[in-house]
Amino acid sequence: MNVSIINIGDELLIGQVVNSNASTMSKMLIAAGMDVREVATIPDDGKAIRETLERCLASTQAVLITGGLGPTKDDITKKTLCDYFHSELYENEEALANVKRIFDSRGYELTPINRQQAWVPRCCTMINNYVGTAPCMWFEKDDKVVVSMPGVPFEMDWLMENEIVARLRQHFHCDYILNKNLLVQGIGESFLSDLIESWELALPASIRLAYLPQAGMVKLRLTARGADEEQLKRQIADAVSKLYPIAGQYIVGEDLETLPELVAYTLKKASKTLATAESCTGGTIASKLTALAGASEYFKGGIVAYSNEVKEIALGVKHETLEAHGAVSEETVREMVMGVRERLHSDYAVATTGIAGPGGGTPEKPVGTVWIGIASKDQVIAKVMKYGDRRAQTIERTCNEVFSSLVKMVKCGG
Amino acid sequence: MNVSIINIGDELLIGQVVNSNASTMSKMLIAAGMDVREVATIPDDGKAIRETLERCLASTQAVLITGGLGPTKDDITKKTLCDYFHSELYENEEALANVKRIFDSRGYELTPINRQQAWVPRCCTMINNYVGTAPCMWFEKDDKVVVSMPGVPFEMDWLMENEIVARLRQHFHCDYILNKNLLVQGIGESFLSDLIESWELALPASIRLAYLPQAGMVKLRLTARGADEEQLKRQIADAVSKLYPIAGQYIVGEDLETLPELVAYTLKKASKTLATAESCTGGTIASKLTALAGASEYFKGGIVAYSNEVKEIALGVKHETLEAHGAVSEETVREMVMGVRERLHSDYAVATTGIAGPGGGTPEKPVGTVWIGIASKDQVIAKVMKYGDRRAQTIERTCNEVFSSLVKMVKCGG
Repeated sequence: MNVSIINIGDELLIGQVVNSNASTMSKMLIAAGMDVREVATIPDDGKAIRETLERCLASTQAVLITGGLGPTKDDITKKTLCDYFHSELYENEEALANVKRIFDSRGYELTPINRQQAWVPRCCTMINNYVGTAPCMWFEKDDKVVVSMPGVPFEMDWLMENEIVARLRQHFHCDYILNKNLLVQGIGESFLSDLIESWELALPASIRLAYLPQAGMVKLRLTARGADEEQLKRQIADAVSKLYPIAGQYIVGEDLETLPELVAYTLKKASKTLATAESCTGGTIASKLTALAGASEYFKGGIVAYSNEVKEIALGVKHETLEAHGAVSEETVREMVMGVRERLHSDYAVATTGIAGPGGGTPEKPVGTVWIGIASKDQVIAKVMKYGDRRAQTIERTCNEVFSSLVKMVKCGG
Repeated sequence: MNVSIINIGDELLIGQVVNSNASTMSKMLIAAGMDVREVATIPDDGKAIRETLERCLASTQAVLITGGLGPTKDDITKKTLCDYFHSELYENEEALANVKRIFDSRGYELTPINRQQAWVPRCCTMINNYVGTAPCMWFEKDDKVVVSMPGVPFEMDWLMENEIVARLRQHFHCDYILNKNLLVQGIGESFLSDLIESWELALPASIRLAYLPQAGMVKLRLTARGADEEQLKRQIADAVSKLYPIAGQYIVGEDLETLPELVAYTLKKASKTLATAESCTGGTIASKLTALAGASEYFKGGIVAYSNEVKEIALGVKHETLEAHGAVSEETVREMVMGVRERLHSDYAVATTGIAGPGGGTPEKPVGTVWIGIASKDQVIAKVMKYGDRRAQTIERTCNEVFSSLVKMVKCGG
């Protein structure tokens, strides 16, 4: 079954907003076994909407539309769809009750303009948007489906997760789809592919394998598709259990998506705590870890030691060390990582100090030079990385290097 | 002059990668006075590429294509374009020299497959991609232009900024475009619009005004378009100078894009320093500030006091305060913000403590309850915010509230 996505909104075309809906929706559809053929981003313009819808309807079975459902004049999606399907608008009771409930909960009075949010074309099935005032509309034309959703990311998200994906699966009698992720670390994609080749060739026809390389690791995704859900579960479990004897030493986690999730999983499993001392990453390591719910189970806190003064005051880095070796040095990163572990009473600690740029480089320590440190009770590892002169990338790569080095140390019980 | 964008890549359709190129490119094109009519995201598929290119060529004057230029089998953009333009591939000397230079600098040996990167269709103008191995290709057909660029964001970025935008402007004899941003804070969009209405009506026809609301502020963008660059400069300067007597008290910065930029600008201008104490934002405030080059001029550092223990150890929050009032309380946030200002010897300090969720809420302090504190030498402000139950949004909104409250205090000399 195949789908196209139309994201409507002037703001997406002037670059004011990054179109994250397209990737969120694609990910959900793919995970449910559907193929996304095209994403079209178009302005709030009736002609563009009609033409794009026509084209997408001709090439795919379902067309998912976001955006243009607000109460202002710019938002013309609802009217355009109503005309396209030769229908007329009416006030939908359930949608009105929803709009009222939301206005009540915010303590706002319902204006006539907001009340219009509850109007939908007669020919569509109204799907209640519990987290917002713009209702979702489901149209059917011949054997095709058109769904119109709000463009606000979390409203689209809620509708897709709670309503649309399941309804599409049911309408088009889709197969069951089960996904299983395995995070692999410490082996390159091509070596991994050689190592598990015979296992891969022996997979049942219902299971597809995908290599999804990410910074510092590879995600293996097994996707099973078929009519019998229980059988698919057994097949996945069987395939995974056969993989462990071959590549088990590289599998660092199951059903995880990112390096910070892997850090969280690894530390929680080991019942260990972490503290951070960040100079060049400026809080980004802590921020990425605390973005995940439940971080307080293992993360005690950190010091963003941006200035040398703070390195001394808050981490106990010796003034002489900074004088003799500079802030970006093995000696400093070692004192930082040991200092934070001791002061914040954690089992493990990580530290970063480097020149993210664009300024601050010297011939001996060019922009992109970063020292990272990882410490446990028993050992301290320090290493220097040479990244390029792009600040954001240097910060990102430093975080990834810290996360993978930390996971390695924890897994080795170091 | 109008443009369409085609982003090619399977990875964009399976949701593995967010298509940030579309918004980056749109922003650059709009700033240069061009209109973006459509963004199409399509798979690495010859038929889809040909059909989409055909359609976009029919509706717009220039088509900018990214992606599908890698050396692997999946990447078919170059071959498809070569066939589309009835041309043939040849090894371009300048492109080869560039590929060699990049491989040399990384210490890699040039393989035959990588050497193929230097092949381009005879009918195109090769534009050297200084930061990557895939050359950029410029095609002309009748009065239309097609440009093919790599999909790697920083390579696309470099090419757009250094080559493509200028070449498009020249080719299509575009007008000069000057943009001027004014950041406005402390007044809502509709009140601002009323306040400056007569000024707006008196703007010369060459100047267009846009309201770009962002979290906690409004960005006013003046865009001047015309053939005489000097005249445009004078007109912009004149319009800005007339705006100050009307709305000057709300204008917090010129030519700034975001709240962190505004914080940096305001603190540097006042020659003041900042320290942060973050609990629920977990380092995100520090991370956003240090993402900008030059943060060391005003940012001393911060404490990510995620656990109560760290609030006591690293910030000096009293055990009795935490016992009596809890971590999420006015008393705690005041001790945090004063503690970090004192310990890190900064002029200003900010602090956050809250329940980002999804766990940890109580009837008195539901998920989304956040205390923020702002301190100078002379005053401490604490306020409580009630956000919803979405973790990422609560963190984001807390950061924005902290940034705007801090700017207000610094601007008032508090």
